[in-house]
Amino acid sequence: MALKTRLTEKLGLKHPVISAPMAFAGGGKLAAAVSNAGGLGLIGGGYGDADWLEAQFGAAGNTPVGCGFITWSLANAPHLLEDVLARKPVAVFLSFGDPAPFGGMIADAGVPLICQVQTIADARAALDAGAGIIVAQGVEAGGHAGSRATFPLVAEVADLLAKAAPDTLLCAAGGIADGRGLAAALMLGADGVLVGSRFSASEEALVFPGWHDALIAADGDTTVQTSVVDIARKRDWPERFKIRAVENALIQRWQGREAELQAAQGEAAQAYEAAAASGDSNNFGVIVGEAVGLIHDIKPAGTIVEKMVAEAEKLLADAPTHIA
Amino acid sequence: MALKTRLTEKLGLKHPVISAPMAFAGGGKLAAAVSNAGGLGLIGGGYGDADWLEAQFGAAGNTPVGCGFITWSLANAPHLLEDVLARKPVAVFLSFGDPAPFGGMIADAGVPLICQVQTIADARAALDAGAGIIVAQGVEAGGHAGSRATFPLVAEVADLLAKAAPDTLLCAAGGIADGRGLAAALMLGADGVLVGSRFSASEEALVFPGWHDALIAADGDTTVQTSVVDIARKRDWPERFKIRAVENALIQRWQGREAELQAAQGEAAQAYEAAAASGDSNNFGVIVGEAVGLIHDIKPAGTIVEKMVAEAEKLLADAPTHIA
Repeated sequence: MALKTRLTEKLGLKHPVISAPMAFAGGGKLAAAVSNAGGLGLIGGGYGDADWLEAQFGAAGNTPVGCGFITWSLANAPHLLEDVLARKPVAVFLSFGDPAPFGGMIADAGVPLICQVQTIADARAALDAGAGIIVAQGVEAGGHAGSRATFPLVAEVADLLAKAAPDTLLCAAGGIADGRGLAAALMLGADGVLVGSRFSASEEALVFPGWHDALIAADGDTTVQTSVVDIARKRDWPERFKIRAVENALIQRWQGREAELQAAQGEAAQAYEAAAASGDSNNFGVIVGEAVGLIHDIKPAGTIVEKMVAEAEKLLADAPTHIA
Repeated sequence: MALKTRLTEKLGLKHPVISAPMAFAGGGKLAAAVSNAGGLGLIGGGYGDADWLEAQFGAAGNTPVGCGFITWSLANAPHLLEDVLARKPVAVFLSFGDPAPFGGMIADAGVPLICQVQTIADARAALDAGAGIIVAQGVEAGGHAGSRATFPLVAEVADLLAKAAPDTLLCAAGGIADGRGLAAALMLGADGVLVGSRFSASEEALVFPGWHDALIAADGDTTVQTSVVDIARKRDWPERFKIRAVENALIQRWQGREAELQAAQGEAAQAYEAAAASGDSNNFGVIVGEAVGLIHDIKPAGTIVEKMVAEAEKLLADAPTHIA
């Protein structure tokens, strides 16, 4: 079985499922597994480590994958985009910053541009930058996000596209971890979904020791948007984007005392690295979305795709039974 | 046409659509219009004005409607619940506080209890209180809400109910303003939806002059969760619930300076009342959710129900076409 949408047709996929280009966690092995299962895997370009990026494209082998960048970070190392475009990725994904400076180069390379947006204003900027696919990401997402929620944002962006750019496709992101979320996203007007948290709970995800146990133990009530994790690991994010993670000892200690943490950043970063190395998941960021409450096991990414799609297919097939 | 779910069967409705018991806005005329259109209308019991409540039940006439209470406020005036139960409402709805003290009286009256919840912990408390229907409400909702978002909260509550209380029904709330949201909610595992913002934009809604114009002018990027509106109108809400409203001059002036506003509360409340009376929508709370970006007209509530259901029916009927 397979699902058919404008996204599968545009990118030649079997299923309208894209793995989020999670910094660090989203390596080449995960991206390739998602692509091999019929979706589209995105390598997480992260904070601009060219060697890591090369290794991850190596790990993906000959499987077609795409690559995502943190837009404000890419602005500090724009040559990375050239490197990636030379590898002929299935798509380039930009989120968290102004995509305008990069749209032209991506278009010239003939590579589809996916822009993730957190507001309607962002969506307009993405259209101006030439995005062929827009991902509307809600506040419930893991990792960085804005403040608007998936449900109304997806529908509102769909309305914008219907009016201003009917050939631009739309994916939903934030809170989607299974077939219910995929089916619901299609009802809201999306052509597909971008999934992070669920793939961070895959065998292929590159996470610290202890991370997966902490993720499985958490329910959706336990995540929080914070700046603490970024300060503690020396990532200088713009104010409007917060990271969502499980509220652990690290976050409880510093939430509301961010200025103090900033002042002690050197020491905090050492402690963070030590916790990551030793698997002390109470003292590094277990970065995940509210959908963590829907995740109860670590599976191969291919199995996750198959299960998600099978569940969505059943829901979509049965949908007309609600009509009296 | 009509939609059939466990909710329509349990409450004898034609459509699985409930109007939120919005304080002040949700009067008897609105509730009756929603019920007459085949959904279930709820009168907003608000902050405990017995005369207002009596007038609104009067305005609903012989149409069967339900009634909602702000749970922490009801605790200050519990006799109101007796008054309402004596009217044999279709259901009693409780949100924002511990429902435990009221569950027994509602059960003894043979009236279905609907509990709105903002977290998984709330959902467990609602089950303990004897809720037959749980509404999972996301942060994108208008009026008061918690911090979790609709998309993952609905699915996670659905999982809880499947395990712990399979006969308890589930509705989704927050961000749902049209047939897309209704269809998506059903895919997430809900048996129906609770809709506030869209019904606040109905001809029957009891809103201040200028409110509807401000609502129509807003897009979803412009709402914000705040305590400013409650302080300015002297409503002493528990810290964990914030109100969502259009970010206007009132909110811009005081957001982040809540302690100062509290100190000037008497004066602020006079200004608030004056703004409400004169239709100065920059200086009272235009209370609405992120779904405001999906709302472009003021319609009779019955028309809103019909359009929402027709749109959902089309989406549900076409859902299987996504299967390749």
